[in-house]
Amino acid sequence: MSAATTPAPCSPEDVRRVACIGAGVIGGGWVAHFLARGYDVTAWDPAPDAEDKLRRLVAAAWPALEQIGLADGASQDRLTVTATLAEAVADAQFIQESAPEKLELKRSLLAELDAAAPAGVVIASSTSGYPMTDMQTEAADPARLVVGHPFNPPYLIPLVEVVGGERTDAAAVEWSARFYDVAGKSVITMDRELPGFIANRLQEALWREALHMVANGEASVEDIDASITEGPGLRWAFMGPCLTFALAGGEGGMAHMLDHFGPSLKSPWTRLEAPELDRTLRDAMVDGCEEAAKGRDYAQLVAERDQGVIDVLRATGRLGGAR
Amino acid sequence: MSAATTPAPCSPEDVRRVACIGAGVIGGGWVAHFLARGYDVTAWDPAPDAEDKLRRLVAAAWPALEQIGLADGASQDRLTVTATLAEAVADAQFIQESAPEKLELKRSLLAELDAAAPAGVVIASSTSGYPMTDMQTEAADPARLVVGHPFNPPYLIPLVEVVGGERTDAAAVEWSARFYDVAGKSVITMDRELPGFIANRLQEALWREALHMVANGEASVEDIDASITEGPGLRWAFMGPCLTFALAGGEGGMAHMLDHFGPSLKSPWTRLEAPELDRTLRDAMVDGCEEAAKGRDYAQLVAERDQGVIDVLRATGRLGGAR
Repeated sequence: MSAATTPAPCSPEDVRRVACIGAGVIGGGWVAHFLARGYDVTAWDPAPDAEDKLRRLVAAAWPALEQIGLADGASQDRLTVTATLAEAVADAQFIQESAPEKLELKRSLLAELDAAAPAGVVIASSTSGYPMTDMQTEAADPARLVVGHPFNPPYLIPLVEVVGGERTDAAAVEWSARFYDVAGKSVITMDRELPGFIANRLQEALWREALHMVANGEASVEDIDASITEGPGLRWAFMGPCLTFALAGGEGGMAHMLDHFGPSLKSPWTRLEAPELDRTLRDAMVDGCEEAAKGRDYAQLVAERDQGVIDVLRATGRLGGAR
Repeated sequence: MSAATTPAPCSPEDVRRVACIGAGVIGGGWVAHFLARGYDVTAWDPAPDAEDKLRRLVAAAWPALEQIGLADGASQDRLTVTATLAEAVADAQFIQESAPEKLELKRSLLAELDAAAPAGVVIASSTSGYPMTDMQTEAADPARLVVGHPFNPPYLIPLVEVVGGERTDAAAVEWSARFYDVAGKSVITMDRELPGFIANRLQEALWREALHMVANGEASVEDIDASITEGPGLRWAFMGPCLTFALAGGEGGMAHMLDHFGPSLKSPWTRLEAPELDRTLRDAMVDGCEEAAKGRDYAQLVAERDQGVIDVLRATGRLGGAR
């Protein structure tokens, strides 16, 4: 971490003006989110038709955002699309960068943003996987650069993964985690850089296995999608893979599950080799699930999972109900 | 496939009596499912306390099943726990085996079931990943042995993956796919044996990446779970990973997505190496997503996804609504 601290110009709670740089699917999704939360948003994107596309995206998202509930004063009119990057960030109190996923581009863009933005304002990158350490190399004040990695669409999926680079100030990481929280996101703050962060590593492993299966004619795209939406995807909407697997162990929980299915880790069920299931890993999983259970016993967790699956099935129109 | 055909003793629509062999978490879950669908169920499990445990599991599941809606005449009283395997299958019209995941055990148990069951009755194994070819080696009539792989809990998660072994009769595969469909499950019939089938390969890849991360101190169990439930898990409850990723490509769909994020397949975002993204794979993904879209355009798919996420968030109590 850098020694030079970068005090933010205002507290996370007091932010009113957000700049979004890059207005594609992700950048535009951020714009929609911040507008819905009542912020003034400035946006800039070098594409000639960017403003039209962006306003279309926001308009398309708005009915969904109205359903969720807009913040007081939230309005699509609070969006200003600027002709230059400098105008977009001139008065910003927080900056979200969502440029295409090219390292050189990110490097120079972040340096440019750093040069143009008011001192101390935190600049977050939506990068899907570059470590900030690799992206902050050209900026004069790398201390205020963080990763704030969203999921598509950012105006509906709560998750943001926050992590700094080697030269990021810990205060900037903390400030942005708090800001995202205030702005209605669900934040995971990481204490180290990990290519792909957490969620993308998990979904990328699944995705690569899917690509292998299609490449080898082992499964169709449609079967792959159905195998998730009719299967584990129903549980993952509200209970993560670890706690879900703990319930597969019955009353014996994760410990029994690892004893029972542990040998399957040697099976060729995926092209990804599993780690050695030694005592340390086993205990880490068992303890982690116990913490995650937060005192709920097996019967309670099963009841919650069952109710969750039923609610999700009903909500997505698969019990012949609503929708 | 075997030349000896094994005509089922009744049509899938006419089945009234189902035997469940093995009454742990999965076998017991099957019992609950079949009871809720109005079948008479016989169950056998060698564990001394099996009946108590099974009846507890079914009783715990029943309120959930009542919510979903029981079939006419469905009752927990239709469960008979037998003292022997032979009694359990004597009058069965379909048999579901859910013994522990040990190959030798599965082999001899399936042979024993085959010897005891009425001729022609289909016997399905809940195995999480053994190919039927490896399990049917000791049975006198291997033609009627199929895999019918459920997800936990089988009484709520619709997916069943159906596949035969080398010596399975194609008619038995077809019969069981139809039977599961009639019995309220969502069936994927596979035309080849694949270790882990489809859904387990996908979730196993994700799971192994998670275990690696915990083993290396890269992420906590709690963060892993939250990264899914607050992120991609919300979409996967109703839209699979392929179609979801197609939307990440914006109006350009899967083609644009692969152009944009394709290079990331070379990134160390997971420990699983990706396949070469050649023209054939690219086209297979693009065509597959187009088929899966079934004529819905980008705007429609985005609207569906957004509504789906909102419904799931609301159903799982994350919009301050219900629950």
